[in-house]
Amino acid sequence: MINVAILGYGTVGSGVYEVLTKNAESIKKKAGDEIRVKYILDIRDFSDAPNAHLFTKDFNVILNDPEVSIVAEVIGGIRPSYDFTKAALLAGKSVVTSNKELVANKGYELLKIAKEKGISYLFEASVGGGIPIIRPMHQCLAANEIEEITGILNGTTNYILTKMINERLSFDEVLKDAQKKGYAEANPDADVLGIDACRKIAILSSLAFSMQVSPDKIHTEGITGISLTDVEYAKATSSVIKLLGRSVLNSDGTVSAMVAPFIIASSNPLANVDDVFNAILVKGDSIGDVMFYGRGAGKLPTASAVVADIIDASKGRRDIFWGEVDYENVRDFNTYEHEFYVRTTDASVDMKATVYGIFGSVKRIVREDMPSGEYTFLTKSFTEAQMKENVEKLAAAGCCKVGSVIRVL
Amino acid sequence: MINVAILGYGTVGSGVYEVLTKNAESIKKKAGDEIRVKYILDIRDFSDAPNAHLFTKDFNVILNDPEVSIVAEVIGGIRPSYDFTKAALLAGKSVVTSNKELVANKGYELLKIAKEKGISYLFEASVGGGIPIIRPMHQCLAANEIEEITGILNGTTNYILTKMINERLSFDEVLKDAQKKGYAEANPDADVLGIDACRKIAILSSLAFSMQVSPDKIHTEGITGISLTDVEYAKATSSVIKLLGRSVLNSDGTVSAMVAPFIIASSNPLANVDDVFNAILVKGDSIGDVMFYGRGAGKLPTASAVVADIIDASKGRRDIFWGEVDYENVRDFNTYEHEFYVRTTDASVDMKATVYGIFGSVKRIVREDMPSGEYTFLTKSFTEAQMKENVEKLAAAGCCKVGSVIRVL
Repeated sequence: MINVAILGYGTVGSGVYEVLTKNAESIKKKAGDEIRVKYILDIRDFSDAPNAHLFTKDFNVILNDPEVSIVAEVIGGIRPSYDFTKAALLAGKSVVTSNKELVANKGYELLKIAKEKGISYLFEASVGGGIPIIRPMHQCLAANEIEEITGILNGTTNYILTKMINERLSFDEVLKDAQKKGYAEANPDADVLGIDACRKIAILSSLAFSMQVSPDKIHTEGITGISLTDVEYAKATSSVIKLLGRSVLNSDGTVSAMVAPFIIASSNPLANVDDVFNAILVKGDSIGDVMFYGRGAGKLPTASAVVADIIDASKGRRDIFWGEVDYENVRDFNTYEHEFYVRTTDASVDMKATVYGIFGSVKRIVREDMPSGEYTFLTKSFTEAQMKENVEKLAAAGCCKVGSVIRVL
Repeated sequence: MINVAILGYGTVGSGVYEVLTKNAESIKKKAGDEIRVKYILDIRDFSDAPNAHLFTKDFNVILNDPEVSIVAEVIGGIRPSYDFTKAALLAGKSVVTSNKELVANKGYELLKIAKEKGISYLFEASVGGGIPIIRPMHQCLAANEIEEITGILNGTTNYILTKMINERLSFDEVLKDAQKKGYAEANPDADVLGIDACRKIAILSSLAFSMQVSPDKIHTEGITGISLTDVEYAKATSSVIKLLGRSVLNSDGTVSAMVAPFIIASSNPLANVDDVFNAILVKGDSIGDVMFYGRGAGKLPTASAVVADIIDASKGRRDIFWGEVDYENVRDFNTYEHEFYVRTTDASVDMKATVYGIFGSVKRIVREDMPSGEYTFLTKSFTEAQMKENVEKLAAAGCCKVGSVIRVL
């Protein structure tokens, strides 16, 4: 009998309880032993719930119970999750979690304690909800040097962009709809500003490149600046706009990582990942491109990933680890190179000469029902620093207003 | 030091050697010990190769060397692979393989020996080339009851169908091109008749439903009957034709499994899997749809999956197992139910009445540049047995010729 405590009885926590109960038989077969929920920690009152006898408000009850060998931390955030996790690990209890913020920021420290104690700290559910990605990346790609990771890592923003593309609605309209459907929070900042995606690409980078990549060092942009007009221009070049988390291993061992909207060609497998789905494209030196696709959030998908980790922890799986934080391991954002999409408005007739003077040769994009005065183009490859300068020059030239600048994958 | 023998130095075997050599440093880190190729078995002469000293033509040299703890069987086929594998396992050596034919037919027996001996029999590379699928399905989905598996499991046929769809070429034209490019064998039967896909869906079914599902019991059709005309009609309904391996767990514990071309809507994530890429869509009760995508074949992708298994075997991973063969576990194909696409030629004017009389209400498909005398339609759901009878009735009615019948997913 393996005794588990669930910390937090919100969406994921109640899902973990449900999956453990519903699939108890097959889980027992896979774990080789019965897995029982002994405690659920939540500060709220659940005295009317059918499983009311499991609830406690006191973490010390769990911490001091030697029967509890696995703790599922599904509270989220840093406090009090960090303290609970650290205490549990120090007490010799394995911890599994869906908490991306904690893993992204404190992964190295917590993995180190787990390693020293000979127990597990597992976090399959922290990226991609139920999509198996942490484990396949670590284990199945063991024979590969991972070179690049590119992912649609946030379901809320992907839902919003998909609606904008398919139904020609504005960002604000779709956001309201997403909030009504429960796909976006009342305060949607963590999603639409890219913060959530940033934590996830930080975790994937840390794992793939075996060193803690701090989310603070990853340049992050959201989708609040994406207009319907940009979506239409992208469509005219058989492309779509997606919010991507992207991380590349450079030959000097540093990492180039960022979160931003990108224009990607329809032929890219990520282009067809729609609605709340997530997908992560991993490029290995031997395997080439591999993609993992599925629901990136939701009660049961996320819960099933947490439960898979509980099973693994019960079997003593503890091979995931990465090196310590090194604030120098992320390369300066200003050196990253991309091709860019630039949309201008109120463009004057001598636009072309000015644009060519600043950017060199560009490829103009035209689309149906294009209002006069819009001059939109794709540039050749520039560093972020060069591009910033170019855009400032264009704005200063006075021949147009710069509407938007988006990177092209 | 872990000593490995590679059986067979063809495409995959030489790839395994290359990956083990090229990534030796990181593999050592992941395995926790150096992995060395001590022997390569091949009946051909490699005396001029730089690694000539590793070659042997005598399997007994490997079998009788107690230093060899892992054997990579990448010969393919049943003989002599089966004998070599069995002997190696009985001698206490773990075996890893890319041999789908052997795993599909003898998996239970070989897994049982490995289990009894406390060693590993691993076969990640047998399905989906380098795509991690066996391990994620077994391990990450541990918390799920798997309900359905649907996959594009053969790169050659997917390449052919993609070319037919995108370049409007006939099956024969594309097959010739694929053979020239090395994507299809001189004798393409195993691919184009669906035999390869059948072995792979047999392995996935065995693993997902924990019982050996014999390939002999799986109804299998290839793509030789798919015409460009069918591709055009599918396109007119925003669909594509793909060769799918499909396996569903029924509520009575039996499995419905088959390989056949299916018409699938463009919105299905499998519809955008093109060229030689493979993808496997797994449906779990908690996780919903998850898809794994990547190159289903090729030297280095497949080799990297074999090497990942070598690393796992070196760490004593041996949790994969399934139950014995039960020829009653696959439900009678005649009972499977689908909607169908039917294309007829030389149709007479009273066609509609005859079709409605036999199939009930149908949905006619029209397309641009459709020749007169073609009457093509989608039916409601029928069992295979009912459909066979319906098609015979239609042929007997004398109002048309039946051109093709394809299932709709």
